[in-house]
Amino acid sequence: MSKNQVSKNLLLISTSTTYGTGYLEHAEEEVKALLAGKSSLLFIPYARPGGISHKDYTAKAREAFEKWGISVTGVHEYDDAVKAVNEAEAVFIGGGNTFVLLRNLYANQLVKPLQERVQKGMPYMGTSAGTNVAGKSIGTTNDMPIVHVKTFDALQLVPFNINPHYQDPVEGSQHMGETRETRIAEFHQHNRQPVVGLREGSMLRITGDKIALKGLLSARVFLQGEKPMEFGPGDDIQFLLEAY
Amino acid sequence: MSKNQVSKNLLLISTSTTYGTGYLEHAEEEVKALLAGKSSLLFIPYARPGGISHKDYTAKAREAFEKWGISVTGVHEYDDAVKAVNEAEAVFIGGGNTFVLLRNLYANQLVKPLQERVQKGMPYMGTSAGTNVAGKSIGTTNDMPIVHVKTFDALQLVPFNINPHYQDPVEGSQHMGETRETRIAEFHQHNRQPVVGLREGSMLRITGDKIALKGLLSARVFLQGEKPMEFGPGDDIQFLLEAY
Repeated sequence: MSKNQVSKNLLLISTSTTYGTGYLEHAEEEVKALLAGKSSLLFIPYARPGGISHKDYTAKAREAFEKWGISVTGVHEYDDAVKAVNEAEAVFIGGGNTFVLLRNLYANQLVKPLQERVQKGMPYMGTSAGTNVAGKSIGTTNDMPIVHVKTFDALQLVPFNINPHYQDPVEGSQHMGETRETRIAEFHQHNRQPVVGLREGSMLRITGDKIALKGLLSARVFLQGEKPMEFGPGDDIQFLLEAY
Repeated sequence: MSKNQVSKNLLLISTSTTYGTGYLEHAEEEVKALLAGKSSLLFIPYARPGGISHKDYTAKAREAFEKWGISVTGVHEYDDAVKAVNEAEAVFIGGGNTFVLLRNLYANQLVKPLQERVQKGMPYMGTSAGTNVAGKSIGTTNDMPIVHVKTFDALQLVPFNINPHYQDPVEGSQHMGETRETRIAEFHQHNRQPVVGLREGSMLRITGDKIALKGLLSARVFLQGEKPMEFGPGDDIQFLLEAY
């Protein structure tokens, strides 16, 4: 790894809420490790799940983090969004629609500031769409393209793509739409970067030049032209950070 | 309806292959009605399901139509794709990846010729992605954005959007990704056109200024700001053609 990546501090979560647990509950331990020593967080609510307002979405995040002693402000509360990112102790981008999210990151000129701050060690946390945009492109999102974006290039905080909410084929299903695996194979007809299928409850933790899979389940990793592979939480997945 | 739409002749099919039937088999009766009096069909294989080649994909379509006495050529077999569309007796766009498909329709300058020919009565048939691009935009595709497209505006052969392979929420599922209904509600935060969720085995038949739902199942219709509605095969859905 090159030296300029050694201070990265990322937590990329598949889903904010697993079945039967509260908002961010399943990731509590990792969230606390990510934010150790910080007392505030800048929340970016642009993905607006279900069309929820920036204000209401931020209130939801605030409620979760306040229990952990972290104060939350929404980026929409600032006159100058770039300044807000530049001065943030840590950033959390929540889930929702990935196209709406990325479009707003570009519209508010936050792509470069986020890249620069993360490069210098500012903790970054994403769930779902917020995890998707941390990858090389949004080309493996599950979301509908409900607004147009001028490019699918994402924040590129990691050199691979992520497919959050990764789903295995449902046995006995009579549905004839493409499986997730088929869709990712189609992605690799046109793109070379690895894709990590993160199942519900899984997350990737990047600290400096190390990457680890957290949660209980294995992740499915797709490399162009190769058979899909499974890696468990203890396995060595360093090669993902060396993708280009 | 305005007079210039009275000769339209479209068949928009959710899926090429339903569970337990062969390619296009479930739609045979409607396909034959669409193509009555025609002996050839131009196939547009751009969507390349699973990355299949244009040649192999066209061979698959050819096999199905030859049984019905219709000869098939692939648009890639012509030096001049625009001329091929302009001279076709009928056009069929097969499923696959909607982004790859629409990108190639624009790259080969086929959007306008297809619109003009359909307007003048040339039979048009689509399955899955080929049905999606017949709508106002591709904003309600289920596919991954594996290539970028300069606009999501589609062929606009009908004034609404279609969601092929429409799926109802799976009861008891522990998956936390958005349901199809949630995704379409998010679409309506940013777009006003109606969305028709076409379940597997369903199709829309447009003849002149009439539209009918075919197949055994009902379709789920989403209007901006209203509760989703169900319409069965015999129901009046004319309002869909009056959307704007």
